Amino acid sequence: MAFTLEEIVRRFGGEVVGDPSHRVGSLAPLDQAGPLQLAFLANPKYLSQVETTQAGAVLISADDLSKLAARDGRNFIVTPNPYAYFARVAQAFIDLAAPKVAPGVHPSATVDASAQVAASAVIGPNVTVEAGAVIGENVRLDANVFVGRGTRIGDGSHLYPNVAVYHGCRIGERAIIHAGAVIGSDGFGFAPDFTGDGDARTGSWVKIPQVGGVAIGPDVEIGANTTIDRGAMADTVIEECVKIDNLVQIGHNCRIGAYTVIAGCAGIAGSTTIGRHCMIGGAVGIAGHVTLADYVIVTAKSGVSKSLLKPGMYTSAFPAVDHADWNRSAALMRNLDKLRDRIKALEAAVAAKTPDET
Amino acid sequence: MAFTLEEIVRRFGGEVVGDPSHRVGSLAPLDQAGPLQLAFLANPKYLSQVETTQAGAVLISADDLSKLAARDGRNFIVTPNPYAYFARVAQAFIDLAAPKVAPGVHPSATVDASAQVAASAVIGPNVTVEAGAVIGENVRLDANVFVGRGTRIGDGSHLYPNVAVYHGCRIGERAIIHAGAVIGSDGFGFAPDFTGDGDARTGSWVKIPQVGGVAIGPDVEIGANTTIDRGAMADTVIEECVKIDNLVQIGHNCRIGAYTVIAGCAGIAGSTTIGRHCMIGGAVGIAGHVTLADYVIVTAKSGVSKSLLKPGMYTSAFPAVDHADWNRSAALMRNLDKLRDRIKALEAAVAAKTPDET
Amino acid sequence: MAFTLEEIVRRFGGEVVGDPSHRVGSLAPLDQAGPLQLAFLANPKYLSQVETTQAGAVLISADDLSKLAARDGRNFIVTPNPYAYFARVAQAFIDLAAPKVAPGVHPSATVDASAQVAASAVIGPNVTVEAGAVIGENVRLDANVFVGRGTRIGDGSHLYPNVAVYHGCRIGERAIIHAGAVIGSDGFGFAPDFTGDGDARTGSWVKIPQVGGVAIGPDVEIGANTTIDRGAMADTVIEECVKIDNLVQIGHNCRIGAYTVIAGCAGIAGSTTIGRHCMIGGAVGIAGHVTLADYVIVTAKSGVSKSLLKPGMYTSAFPAVDHADWNRSAALMRNLDKLRDRIKALEAAVAAKTPDET
Repeated sequence: MAFTLEEIVRRFGGEVVGDPSHRVGSLAPLDQAGPLQLAFLANPKYLSQVETTQAGAVLISADDLSKLAARDGRNFIVTPNPYAYFARVAQAFIDLAAPKVAPGVHPSATVDASAQVAASAVIGPNVTVEAGAVIGENVRLDANVFVGRGTRIGDGSHLYPNVAVYHGCRIGERAIIHAGAVIGSDGFGFAPDFTGDGDARTGSWVKIPQVGGVAIGPDVEIGANTTIDRGAMADTVIEECVKIDNLVQIGHNCRIGAYTVIAGCAGIAGSTTIGRHCMIGGAVGIAGHVTLADYVIVTAKSGVSKSLLKPGMYTSAFPAVDHADWNRSAALMRNLDKLRDRIKALEAAVAAKTPDET
Repeated sequence: MAFTLEEIVRRFGGEVVGDPSHRVGSLAPLDQAGPLQLAFLANPKYLSQVETTQAGAVLISADDLSKLAARDGRNFIVTPNPYAYFARVAQAFIDLAAPKVAPGVHPSATVDASAQVAASAVIGPNVTVEAGAVIGENVRLDANVFVGRGTRIGDGSHLYPNVAVYHGCRIGERAIIHAGAVIGSDGFGFAPDFTGDGDARTGSWVKIPQVGGVAIGPDVEIGANTTIDRGAMADTVIEECVKIDNLVQIGHNCRIGAYTVIAGCAGIAGSTTIGRHCMIGGAVGIAGHVTLADYVIVTAKSGVSKSLLKPGMYTSAFPAVDHADWNRSAALMRNLDKLRDRIKALEAAVAAKTPDET
Repeated sequence: MAFTLEEIVRRFGGEVVGDPSHRVGSLAPLDQAGPLQLAFLANPKYLSQVETTQAGAVLISADDLSKLAARDGRNFIVTPNPYAYFARVAQAFIDLAAPKVAPGVHPSATVDASAQVAASAVIGPNVTVEAGAVIGENVRLDANVFVGRGTRIGDGSHLYPNVAVYHGCRIGERAIIHAGAVIGSDGFGFAPDFTGDGDARTGSWVKIPQVGGVAIGPDVEIGANTTIDRGAMADTVIEECVKIDNLVQIGHNCRIGAYTVIAGCAGIAGSTTIGRHCMIGGAVGIAGHVTLADYVIVTAKSGVSKSLLKPGMYTSAFPAVDHADWNRSAALMRNLDKLRDRIKALEAAVAAKTPDET
């Protein structure tokens, strides 16, 4: 399969500079591409590679194109965002190459008679769809996926193997949920019901029922083995186009604003609200009941214990250094008050000896 | 379904003040409840809402009730712990409303002939129960649950979809284990068997067989995708009424004391003992082979590398601050020894110039 | 089942001192072993237990054996590494005792006609093997395992329940992959395609297709619910004999060098290279696009944000201390620049008053 540059810009936008009838069939990096391949320039520092590339055509911004010394006999697609353009074209080539999966319900699947499954959906081996669930058009549920009663899966969504979505949740259109993710498990809430202290303490933790759901907007991607708890009373909410990596925990009644990205191993405790367009780094921990403004960036491994109400970048992590050096500083750090007291004493001593002229 | 206040106190305790024949059918917050709803006052700062609520009845402590200006024509259930009482009543309403699942083994399940499954148990689609396993009364195993050979699941337990419990483990009564949790995977133990150094090193890691099991007491809840490893020789032990959140890792041969709660993303390395009534915050890391006393609290994101033998609250986490500010302090922190040396030099200089009068 | 010491050394090496025809049938610690049991001395500080043990034979190093006062009438197997020897013998006893599982494909499994499954493999209940996958000799796929199209599972590997290996991956020989692990999920990569700022921002994240795979060498063990993402263009690579604990995240295009061990809850961001024989502690976070040399040790809970190009031990974690003490130091830490300024002022004051004699 190959497409003319004209066909590509008709579908994805941009403008051809060069021969619109030139055909390309795949993508490759600038320094490896051949005449039947499309390459892209996302970073101006590789501009010299564009001069020498054998690529059949190059995705490039108008600005970078204007800097090129020689472009005669070469082909370009001019677009303001070559990297995103590359991603879209690459996805289209992959979709064309992928084996087609026939719609229908695998004979080993268990689909309740009251569930609605679109005829275009692909329901894989050993999938369970409970009563009243609604599976949209072109949805793909891979092997062993579980969809609880009354849960809705939006059109075009793809749930990879072993994903479990509990009852009463809503997944938006075009969701991608990777293997082993769990959506709608109970939030972590218990009322203490103890009397007495120490060894004499008796009683127990009483489970707070979790009767909210999880509501996920369109175009959300959720990583492998990530967990998103259902709300206690109201829903946990993930807004549109949020992207969540693997092994992330999101507590009950959180709200994650649109376009926010959350990297792997992050954990967000219950009832926290994160704004739109935030970037939460890997292994970040965020306390419960706090609010992050739009456009907040929290760098990897940092911990957030209070609300961050202004856009900006926040940090509380140290980079690893030589172990012995670290231990020396860490010991002083634990005794900073003593250093401070020595400074105070020095200040007093110096002041006492300073005559009145100051 | 609705119940008189008298019916409620007969089941859950407490004392009616007002009309015992008043009926309520659901629960709601004080500021939203109507005459057929039960509300609760857990925090005295909302006492004024009790004055104005439309709730059919309010759960309240005797102390708070005594502070109310007007209570004529109002209904109360007086209990020392309105929040726990609320949780219990809410659970009962939910249980009544939940669709009844008929006991029995789903035809797609694979249950070994030598396994014992109580007639009252619900065995869902694609469940696997291996040889010699014992599934207690009223147990519910959801879709794709795996129960290994010889493992026992206590009466009244509920294992959500895709839970895997390896062979030779015991789960106590009334356990709730959320989707994707893994109980009884091999502990992480390898004997180094290498010779030579640097590039010349040869050999391998030799796996230490893990032949202990996991023993879990009654009334334990385990979160989604949490992992609890089996012991190397003896069992890993989780005592009664321990509550564990999502994505928690518990290493081989740990013992977690009764009533302890562990928040999401925490990790506890092997052979560590945690006391009773402890609270382990989110994303806390605890080293192997250490001991935490009863009533230890470790705040979120902290790391524990040594035993904590006294009750109390322990911390080693910083809250995220402005990135540039953090970096400035972090650079100084890495050079604390230089600051300390400057203080020393000053002390020497000041002492040298101080006459004998001091 | 019992074996003579001669039979054992014939299989596992070492040398018998004492009676080669003595038989042992299981293993036990020195202080609990009886005449039919094999014990081991790995740590010289327990040498006195060897003097008094009732064990039928003791695994011991030549050096430790030479320190024994009396060894008449006792049996030993002399080996340079008694602990590794113990592990190997223990595994052999366990393998003998384990119930034999007949090879074959469980009737509830779904195996594509174009997949190749060795006759000696055990394919459990509800397993899915997609088109073109290759399942090697003596492989064991437990309940609900998913193997995507074209993926190869090496001879002798054991995948525990609910493991998902996406399409186009290669698992080496003798892999052990614990329940719920996910291999080959999409790497976390999105091209920003936004215009405008603040509330006026429009656009979306465009998914970067992830068309690399995961290539895993021989003798690798992977813990429960661990996730390893597929590469964007090239493969994510896990070299031979790497051992990975539970709930670890490994990003796309990482390369983990041979014999490296990674403890639970660690997270490694994309395109990072870790050398051979490294030890990554629990809950360590490592940034993307960095390189760790061979023989690097990162202690638990530390964060790595830059390359560590020299072997050695690196740290950035604090141990938890009393909460109030910590908060006092943490407040000073956030104001280290003020302490530094006070030191500067003192230095200036002291210098100003110091006569020219210095």
